[in-house]
Amino acid sequence: MNRPPLVVSIGDPAGIGPELALKAWLQRDTQARPFFVVADPVHLRTLARELGWDVPVSEIEPAAATMAYAQALPVVALRHAFDGTGNDAHGVIEAITRAVEFVRQGAASALVTNPIAKQRLYAAGFQFPGHTEYLGDLAARHWGGTPQPVMMIWSPALAVVPLTIHVPLKDVPGLLSKDAIIATARIVAHDLATRFGLERPRLALSGLNPHAGESGSMGREEIDIIIPAIRQLQAEGLDVRGPLPADTMFHPAARARYDAALCMYHDQALIPAKTLAFDDGVNVTLGLPFVRTSPDHGTAFDIAGKGLANPSSLLAALQLAARLTP
Amino acid sequence: MNRPPLVVSIGDPAGIGPELALKAWLQRDTQARPFFVVADPVHLRTLARELGWDVPVSEIEPAAATMAYAQALPVVALRHAFDGTGNDAHGVIEAITRAVEFVRQGAASALVTNPIAKQRLYAAGFQFPGHTEYLGDLAARHWGGTPQPVMMIWSPALAVVPLTIHVPLKDVPGLLSKDAIIATARIVAHDLATRFGLERPRLALSGLNPHAGESGSMGREEIDIIIPAIRQLQAEGLDVRGPLPADTMFHPAARARYDAALCMYHDQALIPAKTLAFDDGVNVTLGLPFVRTSPDHGTAFDIAGKGLANPSSLLAALQLAARLTP
Repeated sequence: MNRPPLVVSIGDPAGIGPELALKAWLQRDTQARPFFVVADPVHLRTLARELGWDVPVSEIEPAAATMAYAQALPVVALRHAFDGTGNDAHGVIEAITRAVEFVRQGAASALVTNPIAKQRLYAAGFQFPGHTEYLGDLAARHWGGTPQPVMMIWSPALAVVPLTIHVPLKDVPGLLSKDAIIATARIVAHDLATRFGLERPRLALSGLNPHAGESGSMGREEIDIIIPAIRQLQAEGLDVRGPLPADTMFHPAARARYDAALCMYHDQALIPAKTLAFDDGVNVTLGLPFVRTSPDHGTAFDIAGKGLANPSSLLAALQLAARLTP
Repeated sequence: MNRPPLVVSIGDPAGIGPELALKAWLQRDTQARPFFVVADPVHLRTLARELGWDVPVSEIEPAAATMAYAQALPVVALRHAFDGTGNDAHGVIEAITRAVEFVRQGAASALVTNPIAKQRLYAAGFQFPGHTEYLGDLAARHWGGTPQPVMMIWSPALAVVPLTIHVPLKDVPGLLSKDAIIATARIVAHDLATRFGLERPRLALSGLNPHAGESGSMGREEIDIIIPAIRQLQAEGLDVRGPLPADTMFHPAARARYDAALCMYHDQALIPAKTLAFDDGVNVTLGLPFVRTSPDHGTAFDIAGKGLANPSSLLAALQLAARLTP
């Protein structure tokens, strides 16, 4: 039996999300799982016309999406139309909220989110630091429990998980803790096993300092925090190695020795991820009761609406979402 | 007229330097510039025999090196033989000291240094944090002035300069200064012009924080330190851009926009350098009155003496040293 289609939340209407959705449909693989978008159909029709792209937009309910997909981009219409005002923010949030509901109801198999601009949502009363935290809240509401979302950047070349993310570099050492490393590593190992089908996932942890501190001569966080965390994870039976010097853990032979790298901060994880897979990296959220992927880029307001945006990352996000919900 | 040969300081006799010198001679390109080694010839002969490699070792003075090179590895003999005792450290230091003297005398065109183990030299009274500082001291002694050596990791794919190096990550923000960035950028621009033949070198500076701080929302070092430094460098007529988000400045299209990246700390520079060119990166010291290159790896005591070490980086270091002294 066929799985339900994927659902795409449209993201910021002034960003590149909408044109990527149009492009992704134009470049659709008829063998791949269909998707539908939660969006303003009028906005998408106007955009397609402005760009001169032949993308018929079909307003449907989720159950009709798979049928419609061959002939048109299936769109579930937002109640908040995109009119270029503050109303837009409500529509952006509504798209995420309803997309998660569709997954919860079984009307969609997995969620792919297009980029949002957080600053623009705060004005509309959005109370979460970002996408991921909002999804954690929706997951708790619909599935119960207290999910701890974990961001992984995935490409065929490399999967990385940053333990701290959007914080000043000077705050990183103070934010590291044995408990946070252990909690994150458990989620990564669990989801690599259950979602990615790896029987015994191999995790590599980076050090924080140059050369992973060289036995304490360049920083003590490895000795005080990271190594104790690794010991405990190993005692739990997980395949965890490290702390590895971050500069020598991302060349091809090193990458072959693990399935995901847990890094201590944003750039340590994102530099190798984006150096190796700039166009087709996928942001996948682990630790949720459902599958959520996202293209690994932002709204790119500077090029939005011109038809220039590269759909590779959205296409990869769609592909991965389908793979993780077989 | 032919240039004098390159000189290689042998590095730690218990590391992989000696076997790399043997391998580099075995794999010598007869069209490329010859090199000679400052080393213990008995130690090298013994090592070649143990490894079963056919490398005749010819004890010579520098002037005879080019002639000898076709038939044998030319070696200028150390006064301090390698006997496996504390004497070894004196030999390691002597090799560097005399190699620089040969460059100063015009008996060698450029210096290539094999890896040393600093800890092992401290016991013998070595008073410098590392190779680079010792070379700065020798340069001041022989050429005068107060040279400021700057480490660049170079490969055909990417050249990076870390502004801070072997310090704990938590100390990095406090060590950054506008003056240090300006002084380093001037040296890099100068040497890229004079040694690498780039008429107008293009430098890219990274930010310190994720997304280069996103206008101060994730750290202020960009606004307080890096941007003022860039403004001053631009006012001096240098082609300097930044601060760039470190995660998006190392994919191929981004790299095409600059000749060297100045990064704020060790892993920010070395992660992309070693991810992209693990085997054939070269450490080149800018800011010296002579050319010095080095393989971009350490002594690798764990695999030394087994003939397993990969000579790609030493071969690339020899090639670059010749290219920079045409």
